[in-house]
Amino acid sequence: MHSSSVLSPPNCSLLKRSHRNQIEKLSLAPLKNLPFCGLRNEILAFEFSKLNRCEAQRVRNFLRNKIVSASVAENGNAPTSFDYDLVIIGAGVGGHGAALHAVEKGLKTAIIEGDVIGGTCVNRGCVPSKALLAVSGRMRELKNEHHLKALGIQVSGAGYDRQAVADHANNLASKIRNNLTNSLKALGVDILTGVGTITGPQRVKYGKVGFSGSEVTARDIIIATGSVPFVPRGIEVDGKTVITSDHALKLEFVPEWIAIVGSGYIGLEFSDVYTALGSEVTFIEALDQLMPGFDPEISKLAQRILVNPRKIDYHTGVFATKITPAKDGRPVVIELTDAKTKEVKDTLEVDAALIATGRAPFTNGLGLENINVLTQRGFIPVDERMRVVDADGNLVPHLYCIGDANGKMMLAHAASAQGISAASSRES
Amino acid sequence: MHSSSVLSPPNCSLLKRSHRNQIEKLSLAPLKNLPFCGLRNEILAFEFSKLNRCEAQRVRNFLRNKIVSASVAENGNAPTSFDYDLVIIGAGVGGHGAALHAVEKGLKTAIIEGDVIGGTCVNRGCVPSKALLAVSGRMRELKNEHHLKALGIQVSGAGYDRQAVADHANNLASKIRNNLTNSLKALGVDILTGVGTITGPQRVKYGKVGFSGSEVTARDIIIATGSVPFVPRGIEVDGKTVITSDHALKLEFVPEWIAIVGSGYIGLEFSDVYTALGSEVTFIEALDQLMPGFDPEISKLAQRILVNPRKIDYHTGVFATKITPAKDGRPVVIELTDAKTKEVKDTLEVDAALIATGRAPFTNGLGLENINVLTQRGFIPVDERMRVVDADGNLVPHLYCIGDANGKMMLAHAASAQGISAASSRES
Repeated sequence: MHSSSVLSPPNCSLLKRSHRNQIEKLSLAPLKNLPFCGLRNEILAFEFSKLNRCEAQRVRNFLRNKIVSASVAENGNAPTSFDYDLVIIGAGVGGHGAALHAVEKGLKTAIIEGDVIGGTCVNRGCVPSKALLAVSGRMRELKNEHHLKALGIQVSGAGYDRQAVADHANNLASKIRNNLTNSLKALGVDILTGVGTITGPQRVKYGKVGFSGSEVTARDIIIATGSVPFVPRGIEVDGKTVITSDHALKLEFVPEWIAIVGSGYIGLEFSDVYTALGSEVTFIEALDQLMPGFDPEISKLAQRILVNPRKIDYHTGVFATKITPAKDGRPVVIELTDAKTKEVKDTLEVDAALIATGRAPFTNGLGLENINVLTQRGFIPVDERMRVVDADGNLVPHLYCIGDANGKMMLAHAASAQGISAASSRES
Repeated sequence: MHSSSVLSPPNCSLLKRSHRNQIEKLSLAPLKNLPFCGLRNEILAFEFSKLNRCEAQRVRNFLRNKIVSASVAENGNAPTSFDYDLVIIGAGVGGHGAALHAVEKGLKTAIIEGDVIGGTCVNRGCVPSKALLAVSGRMRELKNEHHLKALGIQVSGAGYDRQAVADHANNLASKIRNNLTNSLKALGVDILTGVGTITGPQRVKYGKVGFSGSEVTARDIIIATGSVPFVPRGIEVDGKTVITSDHALKLEFVPEWIAIVGSGYIGLEFSDVYTALGSEVTFIEALDQLMPGFDPEISKLAQRILVNPRKIDYHTGVFATKITPAKDGRPVVIELTDAKTKEVKDTLEVDAALIATGRAPFTNGLGLENINVLTQRGFIPVDERMRVVDADGNLVPHLYCIGDANGKMMLAHAASAQGISAASSRES
C-alpha cells in the first residue's frame, strides 16, 4: 500500500503470463537508447541469470518502477516514484473492467472501494432487479389460470414468501460480488478499503471518512465512482414508505398501492415486479407521456404489453412536488403540480412511493477541488478519451473518469467499455 | 386452373404494386427489338388508353403470357402457353417461402398440396415440438421444489392434463397453418389440392391418388415435397407403442419407460418432453456416443444439462435391429445388435419406442420417371442453384427442387431460403 510495497516480491504463481512477458521484454529491451538514466548502468550491469525466478522478477519490478518514476519526474507537483501504475477509485462494473484490463496489460493496479465491490449494477441495480423480475414473471404466470389451462398445466396454491424472494435477490448479488472480488484478488489487484480522495496530482488518499487514512501515488488515476438515485427537492425519503431503488430492491415491504415517480426503465421494471406480487401501481410522470425517453416503437409495445393489461394507472404532465412518508397511521401524501401551469393540481394518498426519477453522479469527497476540477450538473467533465478536463478547460494529466460519474451514458456496460478504453489509453 | 384462366381479369385490388409495375413496364418496353413476334404488331397497335384500368391490365396480362409462351415454344414437348408462371409442388415452409417471393416478383403462382398447408415444420415438426417443450419446461420447473424454494415461490400442487397439453400443441399448429393458408390466398396464390405428379416438361397433374385429376402447365416448376420420418428395416411402427415423431407430437400416451432410437436433435427434444412429463428414457444410439452429429462443445453441454441430471440412460454402439410393438399384454421388444460385431447383444422390453433415426425425402408419386430423373439415396439431385439434374447429368429445364427433398440441408429455414432463391433465379 506504501511505496515500499513496490519492492515486495510478487507472488509468482499468481502473476499472469502477459505480466511476466512484459517484465521479460523490459529487461531484454535495448535500454541504452532510453532517454532517461542513471539507472541504465545498474540495469545493464545486473545479471538476471544469477537470481532465481522470483528474485529476478522482484528486481525487474523494482527497476521497472524506477523507470516509470523517472519518466514523469519532470512534473513539479507530481511524485517522482509511484506505488501503482494505476489506481482506480470505485469498484463497480466500470472500475472492475478497467482493473482487469490494466492487469492484462501488465500494470500494477489498485482499486479503492468505500462500499461493496460490484457497485450499483451488482448490488443495487441490474443484478438484484433481474432476480426480482425472474420471480415476478413466474408469479404472474402462476396466477394466470387461463394461460396455464391453455397449456394443459394445473397448479394449486401458488404464492410467494416475500423474505425468501428478497433473499434470493440478495444471494445472487452476493454471489456475483464474491466472484468479482475473487477475480480482482486472483489477478493481483490491491483492493484498498475506504473512500478515495484525490489530494493532488497522481496522489490519492483512502480510508474512513473523518480519519487520516493512507495515501498512495499512481502514475494514472481513473475515477469510477458511479451514481446514486436522484431525489428531487420536496421529496422526503425515509427508506420505508418513500423509497428509492436502493431500498426497493431489498423488498422489505410489498405495498397494496404504490406510486412510482418517473416512468423510465427503472420505474417500469419495478411496476412489473410490484404488480406481479399483487400491488397496484400509479405512475407519476412529468412529461406528457409514459416512458418519454424510450424509442417510440418500444414505448408503444411496453404500454400495450407491460402497462395496459395490468393494475397500473398514471398521471402524466405532473411533478410530484412534495412527498411525505407515512407516519402515525397517515398514508404517504403526494402533492401533484401541473408541469405547465406550475399549480398544485391534486393530492394522492398511497401506501408507498418509489422515487425513480433518474440517477445523479456520485462525487462526494473525491477532492476535485484539490486539482481544480469543477463538476457540470454534478458530472465530471471529460474529453472523448475520458480524460478529465479542469475548470480552465485543460486536460488534467494522468486523470480519467469513466462510467456514470461522467454522465456520457449511464449504463454498466458503457462504464466497463470506457474503463477498458481508459486503461488502454495511458498517456506517454 | 386451365389455360383459359390466363385470360380472366385479375382482381385489381389484390394485385400487388410490384406486379402492376411489372405489367406497366412490359407494355411500355420497346417491343420492336424483341426477337420473337407475330405478336409485336398486335401489341403496338393496341391502345391501352382506351381501356379502363382493369381491362388494360387484363389485356397486358394476356399479351405478357403470350410473350412468355413464345419464348419457350422451341421446346418440342413443352406447352406453348402456360397456366402459371410457377407451380410449386408442396406447401411446407419451403414451398410457402417460394410462393410468397414469386408473387412479390409478379409471377402467377400456384401451389399443390396433398396434405396440410405448412408441411412438416408447422404440423409435425418445429411448431408442435416447441409447444410441447414450452409445457414440459414449465412442468419440470414446477416439480423442482428446491429451485422454486430458492426463488421464494411456493406451489402446493402441479400437474398436467395430457390431452390438454396435446390440444395446446395442435391448436398452435392449426393457428399457424391458418395464417399460412390465408397469406397464400390473400396474395392470390392458387392452392391446388391433391398429390402433384410431373407428367412431362412443364406439366403437372394434381388430384387424389388413383383419380385422373387435372393438369396444369407452368413455365417453371419447383418441387418442395419435403421429407417423412425414416424408419430402419426390422422396425414395425404401429403408431401407438412404436411411433415416429409424427405420432409422438400428438402425445396420445405418456409411457412410463420409452426407448428413443437415435440421439439426434429430434430424439433429444423428445427426451426432454417425456422426462418432464414423468417418463424414463433409454437412448439407443448406433454410434459410439450420444448426439454424434452435434458440435462437440454443444453435445458436451447437452450431455451435462439435458441428459445426466435426468432419468435417462443409454446404449451406444448398438443398432435396434428389430422392434415389435406391444400386443396382448406383452411389452415393446427391442433387439439390440452390436454395431461392430453385428451380433445380437441384448433385448430391451419397454412400454414404447420412438424411432428418431432421421428423415427420408418424400418423392412418392412425383412422376420423376416421366422426366428421366433418378433419385440418389432417395434425394432429388440438384445443382448449386437448386436446378434438377436428370439421369444423364443434364439440367432439366424449368425444374427446381428445394428443401428436404434435395437433402442439402434438412431444415425449414434452409428450405425457405432455397425456395426464395429458386423463385428468383428463373431461367431466361
